[in-house]
Amino acid sequence: KVLGKKPFASASRLAMSTQVWLNTIPTRNCDVLMTFPPKTDDAVLMWLLSRLRSRIPELVVHVRHHSNTNVYGFYFTASYENILKGADELALVKPVKEKFGGGKKEFAFEDRDCYEGVEDHLNFLNSQERQCIVKNILFSLRAREDDQLGKIKFGEGQGIVPILLSKKMIDQVLPLHNNDDMEFLRKTWVKAVAKSQPLDKICDYFGVKIAMYFAYLGHYTRFVSLPTIVGLIFWCLEKKNQFYDDIFFVAFAFLNVVWATLYLEHWKRQSAELAYKWGTLDTEDELLTEPRPLFHGRLQKSTVTGRQEPYYAPWKRNLFRYCVSMPVIAICLCTVFAVMWCLFELQDYINSKGMKGPPGFLLKLLPKIMLAVSIGVLDDMYKKIAYWLNDKENYRLDEQYENHLIIKIVLFQFVNSFLSLFYIAFYLQDMNRLKDQLAALLITRQIIGNVKEAVLPFVLSKIKLFKMGYKMTKDAEKKKKEEDEEKKKAEGGANEETSNGGVTEVANEASELRQRKFAGAEGGEQIEVKRSGPQLTQAEIEASQKEYEGTFEDYLEMLVQFGYVTLFSSAFPLAALCAFLNNIIEIRSDAFKLCFTFQRPFGQRVQNIGTWQDALEVMSVIAVMVNCALIGMSDLAERLFPGWGTTERLVLIVALEHIILIVKFLVAYAIPDIPQWVAEEKARLEYLRRDALK
Amino acid sequence: KVLGKKPFASASRLAMSTQVWLNTIPTRNCDVLMTFPPKTDDAVLMWLLSRLRSRIPELVVHVRHHSNTNVYGFYFTASYENILKGADELALVKPVKEKFGGGKKEFAFEDRDCYEGVEDHLNFLNSQERQCIVKNILFSLRAREDDQLGKIKFGEGQGIVPILLSKKMIDQVLPLHNNDDMEFLRKTWVKAVAKSQPLDKICDYFGVKIAMYFAYLGHYTRFVSLPTIVGLIFWCLEKKNQFYDDIFFVAFAFLNVVWATLYLEHWKRQSAELAYKWGTLDTEDELLTEPRPLFHGRLQKSTVTGRQEPYYAPWKRNLFRYCVSMPVIAICLCTVFAVMWCLFELQDYINSKGMKGPPGFLLKLLPKIMLAVSIGVLDDMYKKIAYWLNDKENYRLDEQYENHLIIKIVLFQFVNSFLSLFYIAFYLQDMNRLKDQLAALLITRQIIGNVKEAVLPFVLSKIKLFKMGYKMTKDAEKKKKEEDEEKKKAEGGANEETSNGGVTEVANEASELRQRKFAGAEGGEQIEVKRSGPQLTQAEIEASQKEYEGTFEDYLEMLVQFGYVTLFSSAFPLAALCAFLNNIIEIRSDAFKLCFTFQRPFGQRVQNIGTWQDALEVMSVIAVMVNCALIGMSDLAERLFPGWGTTERLVLIVALEHIILIVKFLVAYAIPDIPQWVAEEKARLEYLRRDALK
Repeated sequence: KVLGKKPFASASRLAMSTQVWLNTIPTRNCDVLMTFPPKTDDAVLMWLLSRLRSRIPELVVHVRHHSNTNVYGFYFTASYENILKGADELALVKPVKEKFGGGKKEFAFEDRDCYEGVEDHLNFLNSQERQCIVKNILFSLRAREDDQLGKIKFGEGQGIVPILLSKKMIDQVLPLHNNDDMEFLRKTWVKAVAKSQPLDKICDYFGVKIAMYFAYLGHYTRFVSLPTIVGLIFWCLEKKNQFYDDIFFVAFAFLNVVWATLYLEHWKRQSAELAYKWGTLDTEDELLTEPRPLFHGRLQKSTVTGRQEPYYAPWKRNLFRYCVSMPVIAICLCTVFAVMWCLFELQDYINSKGMKGPPGFLLKLLPKIMLAVSIGVLDDMYKKIAYWLNDKENYRLDEQYENHLIIKIVLFQFVNSFLSLFYIAFYLQDMNRLKDQLAALLITRQIIGNVKEAVLPFVLSKIKLFKMGYKMTKDAEKKKKEEDEEKKKAEGGANEETSNGGVTEVANEASELRQRKFAGAEGGEQIEVKRSGPQLTQAEIEASQKEYEGTFEDYLEMLVQFGYVTLFSSAFPLAALCAFLNNIIEIRSDAFKLCFTFQRPFGQRVQNIGTWQDALEVMSVIAVMVNCALIGMSDLAERLFPGWGTTERLVLIVALEHIILIVKFLVAYAIPDIPQWVAEEKARLEYLRRDALK
Repeated sequence: KVLGKKPFASASRLAMSTQVWLNTIPTRNCDVLMTFPPKTDDAVLMWLLSRLRSRIPELVVHVRHHSNTNVYGFYFTASYENILKGADELALVKPVKEKFGGGKKEFAFEDRDCYEGVEDHLNFLNSQERQCIVKNILFSLRAREDDQLGKIKFGEGQGIVPILLSKKMIDQVLPLHNNDDMEFLRKTWVKAVAKSQPLDKICDYFGVKIAMYFAYLGHYTRFVSLPTIVGLIFWCLEKKNQFYDDIFFVAFAFLNVVWATLYLEHWKRQSAELAYKWGTLDTEDELLTEPRPLFHGRLQKSTVTGRQEPYYAPWKRNLFRYCVSMPVIAICLCTVFAVMWCLFELQDYINSKGMKGPPGFLLKLLPKIMLAVSIGVLDDMYKKIAYWLNDKENYRLDEQYENHLIIKIVLFQFVNSFLSLFYIAFYLQDMNRLKDQLAALLITRQIIGNVKEAVLPFVLSKIKLFKMGYKMTKDAEKKKKEEDEEKKKAEGGANEETSNGGVTEVANEASELRQRKFAGAEGGEQIEVKRSGPQLTQAEIEASQKEYEGTFEDYLEMLVQFGYVTLFSSAFPLAALCAFLNNIIEIRSDAFKLCFTFQRPFGQRVQNIGTWQDALEVMSVIAVMVNCALIGMSDLAERLFPGWGTTERLVLIVALEHIILIVKFLVAYAIPDIPQWVAEEKARLEYLRRDALK
């Protein structure tokens, strides 16, 4: 009946629903899904499958075919025992039963009975942990001597999956969503705008790295409310009395700097607390961590493990960094600087001509457009260069790779985001224009950012689903016609095929050849399907979604915003308010991205926000300099110290800057980075551990 | 025959010999010696002895009486097995046998057979380690409920020995020298001026803390040779050409700053290497370390160990620090500042009067004397205040206590040592006088320092020995006379007392009462004594020596010197040369102190040079500022940029300072604090440890 409807109507119903999963067939018994590009040769699948089966038998693999997208998928899971062994391998931190001393400890398979709730097969490890474990087992598939697939020759001990992924022989490896948890997060997180975020749940579901980002965002938003309020008061009282205005300006600049310092210290402690709670405060020794898949080097006996491992001499990396990366980046930054400066000058020149009417308006618009275009182009080029340099630097760990990428990108973004403000503030020395420019930048950037990040991908993913739905209904109609025709032709022999949505269990396929080839792929659960229309399985939908691109861009956005708030906000006291309002939306729109638009990401374990913390701290130091300079350059200094000469004022400002910086470092030095209770709890566990050894 | 000599001659022979130990009876089978004040009540000895015997039976105690100084001594040692258990307790790091994986590991008594050389009872642990272990056992003697000695009531679980030490009921607890090792160090260290120091041997004999100081001193001396050479060249070429002089001045200031940064980074790495080699790179969790003896607080159940432990709320400490210590110190510093400044002004005023002849000379001398006196008085007062404040702050660990003391003392010393230079450089702006003053300060301070530190204590200790020898010979003569008289009176019954130098094994004493009281004190070795004159035992001599006062003053001296070299050396290029020459002497004179004059100190385990590193780094930052300011204030800036106004020059200097500081921080950030090989070795051992657990 439903199949008879107009395809367009049916597909649009499917596409318009934001709750597309409710109409889909959930995929069970699958932690991690691997898909291959369409038209992948059967031989490739066979080659990989046989290696998976023989070398990592602890992994359970089902092979299925997604008919709607015409791709093959490997569905991975593992037995509870093997999952526990994997938890040991990953050193997941789990609570210990009270009678064994309580507290939390790295999971050890041998002492598994000591851990709280280990008997509960369903809840001891959440879906995110299971997925990480299964992924870890999957990625532990290593090449042996003479392993070869087509043109790809593997080195002994190389990870097979990462290499096939990088060569695009495997399309993607992704974890699947858990519908109940997802629903819970949508209700208590995405839609509960006025409530605080369920951080522990987010950590359970998306892993520490993403939860840490949202914790940071929430913490920052709470803290930014202070300059918001003070800024609002300042803004209301402004222009009443020149003297009080001046005092307030200085006080506000000072407040900003103090606030930034205390905020950063507080966040450091907060993140240590969270990391402790989430079991990542003590991370593994760097040299014991597995290298990232794309790390390459000459195989040699590792001094650490004694095994054959790729080695890349640090001096080579340093040579490249200092002799190639640094000059190249310097040239890039100078180029951007020069281009932007020239366009500012051009704009200034045109403005000063003061032409009127439409031609004047167009002429004034010209440098703006040129600026937007050139920044876009340069940004794009720079990003490519930065990634290329970073790849060439060949870091061993994902974390190092990301940290160095952060430094490169941040340098560019700093010039890109702040040069116009510096130009206006210190070259033109026009405080009013600075205010306008800051307001414009803050508001436009944030609106564009949110649209680009949340709305656009959501619409795109809907369109994709829409297309798929359209194709499905068309195919179904066609099939129905054929069936009808067949029925007419031969009214005998019931067709007993049980369709599993669009997914066909390969082992049930008619093709005998395949059945022989994939011997052993059976054993997948049989799903009872109520055929209520053209349906997609969860796995098929999620495999077609876009991959979540990580927290990098989000952090970058926040860093730039933090810069606007701390560097120049004394010129525009409402900057903090703009940031505050934006962040309230930002939290939910970033949450929306994760819960509605993108594939579920694998959980990543991080200790803190990494180099972003350093970048924020550098920004807060720059804030001291800029604020002091702003005070020194404004007429304000002249009004506050009327009898003084320029040199005296300058010396005063420089002294002030040095004192503030010294106080700032003293404060940061005096506040412990780890809260007392965390330190005590850590010591207690260490004490117990030692006691147990005796 | 010898006894018949004039007492003066005999005593002087004893006193003048720098090799007094050669004439003494070595004390064997004693790791740690405890002495009591003269006239200590027997009841006190009995009380302590019974508790030692019953509560820490692993300690072997001999009670002896030093007749020359009339004090009692407890001689402690322990069996090899108990020493090994103590090594486990202290977590000493020992090499593991090759067949068990090699490398170094914390000693574990249970796996003692895995350690290299454990069979060798004499050499597995050196004398310093044995002493630390025995001291640790001794200090583990804890009070029980109702323990009371005279008026001293002990809280349950309090350490008895530290409290008796602080109440002066115990005079001292000291480790004894080992004559062979001592001789070796004297030859290869104190007297081998041209050779590099035998750091490992020093560490073996005196412990990590002292070895770290000498390593630092040696490393600094090597590094200071660079500015020495450059400074010499500069000095030779000076006054040839104004332009080149100016360039050189700037270049030398810049070189100093760069040198200081690189030197500090290099030392950080070097010290990490040494700490790794000496087994202290990974120190224990602070909260697991035993509190220092004088730490006090309300007894309560520790959140860490669950035992009753003294607890002092951090907020109380912080309250005191910020509300008492900081204002008090600020007032002190201001006072010193004001007093010194006034005296400088006075000096200046008198100088400007230009009076001639003797009255003029005396008048000119007056402020100098007043300055010297007032600095001396203020220094003394400030030190008392600083110690009092630091005691009140009640730090839990010796390390914290020392670190905070460093901060307090350094602040004062900074004003004290540098104010005159700042006054001349920036207030009077007189470069020539700055040069003279710097030279005078460098040379006089260093000569006075070495005399005060090395010569004076040595002479004093010799005088003390001389007096003891004098008394001894007199006593011996008296005794001989008495004996002669006795012999004359009753020529029967041979006196079979075997004197053990001046030390009498208490158990052999005639007094039966004592023999009963100290039952169990026997068992001490019988030393064969060739009576060749009035002799002192090693223990007696060492107990009468002064205690080594630690490395604090030595570090302070080096810090001030480092300041002279980096802050103002562009004004006086030979500063580094003075420092270099001084340090060559300093190394040996400090070594001389340890090997000839003072008691042997207990070894202390430290990870690095602690807050001194921070102080040096702060000094190097100040150096940037001062050097930039020196350049900015000299006529040089005018000569180099003739067309520029004062403001422009000032901006240029400030910009230069900021750039140098930024580069400095970048360099410090880019250089890893731990050398690669140490990181790799640590990772390797961690890998082995994990592997072993599986």
